[in-house]
Amino acid sequence: MGTAGTPTRIEHIGIAVRDLDAAIRTYERLLGVGPYAVEEVPDQNVRTAFFRLGESKIELLESTSPDGPVARFIAKRGEGIHHIAYAVGDIHAALHDLASGGVRLIDGEPRKGAEGLSIAFIHPLSACGVLTEITDTAPQLP
Amino acid sequence: MGTAGTPTRIEHIGIAVRDLDAAIRTYERLLGVGPYAVEEVPDQNVRTAFFRLGESKIELLESTSPDGPVARFIAKRGEGIHHIAYAVGDIHAALHDLASGGVRLIDGEPRKGAEGLSIAFIHPLSACGVLTEITDTAPQLP
Repeated sequence: MGTAGTPTRIEHIGIAVRDLDAAIRTYERLLGVGPYAVEEVPDQNVRTAFFRLGESKIELLESTSPDGPVARFIAKRGEGIHHIAYAVGDIHAALHDLASGGVRLIDGEPRKGAEGLSIAFIHPLSACGVLTEITDTAPQLP
Repeated sequence: MGTAGTPTRIEHIGIAVRDLDAAIRTYERLLGVGPYAVEEVPDQNVRTAFFRLGESKIELLESTSPDGPVARFIAKRGEGIHHIAYAVGDIHAALHDLASGGVRLIDGEPRKGAEGLSIAFIHPLSACGVLTEITDTAPQLP
């Protein structure tokens, strides 16, 4: 795998929650800090809160729609970790390397996620049951 | 919460897998590196592989017993993220602060985990469904 496409850190852990305001209080207690951002991502039917933790973030996700992906996750499994996201230097290189290595992708091309980052999802079947996201954290040219 | 008990980074993400050797190959492909350690933890009936990723680690967990916690997790939910561990400077201070804040603990006192670290688990009911571990990464005095 080329170095530009190799993950360098955990960008965030996404946790599916029923009630974002209650979950923010819970994670303030666990992490000792409040969220630095609360944001709605209409494309994904979620409202999110982000906490910084070292070089990573904890993202709490509440569904804004009863049939959104986070609502369906909670209906099936209850609250819990929904996905893990790795930061890569170059998301196009990463997708190329992963596809060449036989990894099953949900998104063959990057799309826009929370915080304006380019993101793509890897299928849980290629990650031991874990819904896995990669995000491009390189500076974006206009 | 006192600063000594506050998490400073994600120490690791624990992923429950059926077949450790196959899972190592899967995560080598995703992370672009091999594991730096493969270790058995008899207390927890698991065989583990650790991958470095920035300031964090990915821990793959295979049960060595059909009725161990990881085997029961997989029987109920399939492979996937089993727990998240946060590093704290002082695990005793962290447990004191969490208990004082009304957080439900599985371990009121630290015990030994993988890699010789002192660890304790927080109940998923106090972490939005997430089995949460804290680990003390301060230098250990003899």
